Amino acid sequence: MDSSSKFAQRIHTMAGSAEVVRGLFNSLADPELISLSIGAPAKEALPVELVREIANDVLRRDGRGVESLQYGPLLGVKDLREIIVDQLLAPKGVKTDADHIMITTGGLETISLTCQIYINPGDVVLVERPTFVHAVETFEMFEAKCVGVEMDEDGMCMDDLEKKIQQYNPKMIYVIPTFQNPSGRTLTLERRKKIAELADQYDVLVFEDDPYRDIRFTGHDLAPIKSFDKSGKVILGNSFSKIFSAGSRLGYIVGLPEMMQPLQDVKTASNSHTSMLPQVLCAEFFKRGYYPEHHEMICSLYRERCQKMMECIEEYFPKGTKWTVPDGGLFTWAQLPGGLNTTVLREEAITRPDVKVAFVAGEKFFTDGEPVTNCMRISFGAVSPENIEKATKKLGKMLCEKLG
Amino acid sequence: MDSSSKFAQRIHTMAGSAEVVRGLFNSLADPELISLSIGAPAKEALPVELVREIANDVLRRDGRGVESLQYGPLLGVKDLREIIVDQLLAPKGVKTDADHIMITTGGLETISLTCQIYINPGDVVLVERPTFVHAVETFEMFEAKCVGVEMDEDGMCMDDLEKKIQQYNPKMIYVIPTFQNPSGRTLTLERRKKIAELADQYDVLVFEDDPYRDIRFTGHDLAPIKSFDKSGKVILGNSFSKIFSAGSRLGYIVGLPEMMQPLQDVKTASNSHTSMLPQVLCAEFFKRGYYPEHHEMICSLYRERCQKMMECIEEYFPKGTKWTVPDGGLFTWAQLPGGLNTTVLREEAITRPDVKVAFVAGEKFFTDGEPVTNCMRISFGAVSPENIEKATKKLGKMLCEKLG
Repeated sequence: MDSSSKFAQRIHTMAGSAEVVRGLFNSLADPELISLSIGAPAKEALPVELVREIANDVLRRDGRGVESLQYGPLLGVKDLREIIVDQLLAPKGVKTDADHIMITTGGLETISLTCQIYINPGDVVLVERPTFVHAVETFEMFEAKCVGVEMDEDGMCMDDLEKKIQQYNPKMIYVIPTFQNPSGRTLTLERRKKIAELADQYDVLVFEDDPYRDIRFTGHDLAPIKSFDKSGKVILGNSFSKIFSAGSRLGYIVGLPEMMQPLQDVKTASNSHTSMLPQVLCAEFFKRGYYPEHHEMICSLYRERCQKMMECIEEYFPKGTKWTVPDGGLFTWAQLPGGLNTTVLREEAITRPDVKVAFVAGEKFFTDGEPVTNCMRISFGAVSPENIEKATKKLGKMLCEKLG
Repeated sequence: MDSSSKFAQRIHTMAGSAEVVRGLFNSLADPELISLSIGAPAKEALPVELVREIANDVLRRDGRGVESLQYGPLLGVKDLREIIVDQLLAPKGVKTDADHIMITTGGLETISLTCQIYINPGDVVLVERPTFVHAVETFEMFEAKCVGVEMDEDGMCMDDLEKKIQQYNPKMIYVIPTFQNPSGRTLTLERRKKIAELADQYDVLVFEDDPYRDIRFTGHDLAPIKSFDKSGKVILGNSFSKIFSAGSRLGYIVGLPEMMQPLQDVKTASNSHTSMLPQVLCAEFFKRGYYPEHHEMICSLYRERCQKMMECIEEYFPKGTKWTVPDGGLFTWAQLPGGLNTTVLREEAITRPDVKVAFVAGEKFFTDGEPVTNCMRISFGAVSPENIEKATKKLGKMLCEKLG
């Protein structure tokens, strides 16, 4: 008898979403496949040469070499936390200090540690409809119940949010306000203020997950929900995955004062602290002033890819398709006409020799309620303009065929 | 009203151990203090120069630069997993393959991920008396009940283990078989076999935590409990913290076949995967053949410090003190005579201007049962021989005074 009968309850509750995520990763195995399914940064956006230069400087006994390889602070490297406060938060209107920041093992860990602190089995988390699959998997690991809130082109709908707060008495509202994953939509400034107000009014926590915000192609920065948080209800999570390096697994949480001690306790009990060398490299990347130019470069790169994707969807996808024109980020979201089922089409698109294009079927991003089967998430960030053209042409042709 | 009323149940169950751990870290702040309290590697044992050389080679676009900064496999970098199988496990008699290894964010994450898979609130985990504080904190985060099993100089006592298995029907036995933290003791070969047999007989999981095993000064390697596991009950956790770099936060788990899929699911939901650059650097460290010489160097370094510590305890500590003479690792465990209370003495030792020496009071390492107040954990790994002499002399003087 194997040990699977001993699995904890949470393993059973999370089985559904986990399967989806496995599918995402496995579809990358075929070298001929063009993947529009993964939210990874472009390899051209990874600062390989700069990191080599920095590593060569810091990995010295008279430099930061011992610090980089030795145990470090639970909250993370102090100068990196100060950089976050001064360079990444203050300009957006979020006032805090280094003692209220923890550096985490990637953006997702900001969610899992927050769940460790706040989520009991059965707690309700309100999420966007559609929302980020990995976050849902995390909430399910903590045996939370995710309830979807309707969205329109301007993000989460405030009337449905208030209704569901009243109906479900949720522990937390999970929201990705900027260039949302998977929809590419951005929550308006008015709604950001309104979420902070509702959180205060109904005494509900908000987890604001904002990893795409600095990849903006057009328009102006919108202040984070956190900047409107007068009563200490909004927890902000962010990540260096899109602006520095995804593989470094560096994220950060801007915590509420009362959660900073439990946060250190659950971090210690999870994995002690975040890996030191990536933190030191990232801190030096900002301290040496490399970020502004790098940031400009990656925004141009993604802007070009996004424009290309918009042109290609317009040109190749079936008439009647609706899609998001994102102001930034790595994704768009397409809604197909004629009753096409993207869950079914996905398998065919991946395996058909004349297509071999992967995307993520939209159904996966809805936690509950009416199934939505005619949508797809399309990632353009990690795909060259040539491959965007090739993939959308082949995929578009297949979709047009289906409509006859 | 702040959000602390919303904290999950686990935050309340883990509060006790967490406080202890905080104490350990905070005591490092005073620069005049000599700390015999932290289980960190010596800074001289960190391969700073080798890592710089490797980083300079790998961080190239035609090398492993993109791999190091991009998202990577859930299980971890494949060549590192193969190195673990071939170089670290096969020579010890543990037969497995890369598909049954996951690289984790440090050794502690091997425990927290295992708990995610197996531990429900209320489950009993049998631990050594005394045992590793951080592991207890992790078990408490999962609302497990830790029950201590008696130890003698040869490790966990088999009769008490069997008695407590019958009494508590535990989910898991947690054991640090080699140069145990905090006691420095090593479980005999016979008892290792016996634990595997008891696990089989009573259908109990074993978590074998073995991060110190390669820091051996004297005697011969003892086969891991895992090597006697015929029925798939033993999970092996290990770490690169002591043999490569603690700050890299690299550990690995040798999992049971049926847990490999849930392991990937809970890892994804916790922090996606382990940081890539440290994995690539560690893999190259082994592939380039740097480990054997480095290993010999660090064993000599710790052997010298251990010998010095043994001499100094003999010379300076009160008559009647008993202590472990470890065959390896970073710790010894001293039992003081005359009813001295180490919990009380610790505060005085840290703050008294003529002492300023930190150690960990033994009481903290006992999860339940009769309090043991006359023991202390003494770390020698990160302390120079000069400071070992200084610290034990001052501390010994203070202890002798107390006995009058």
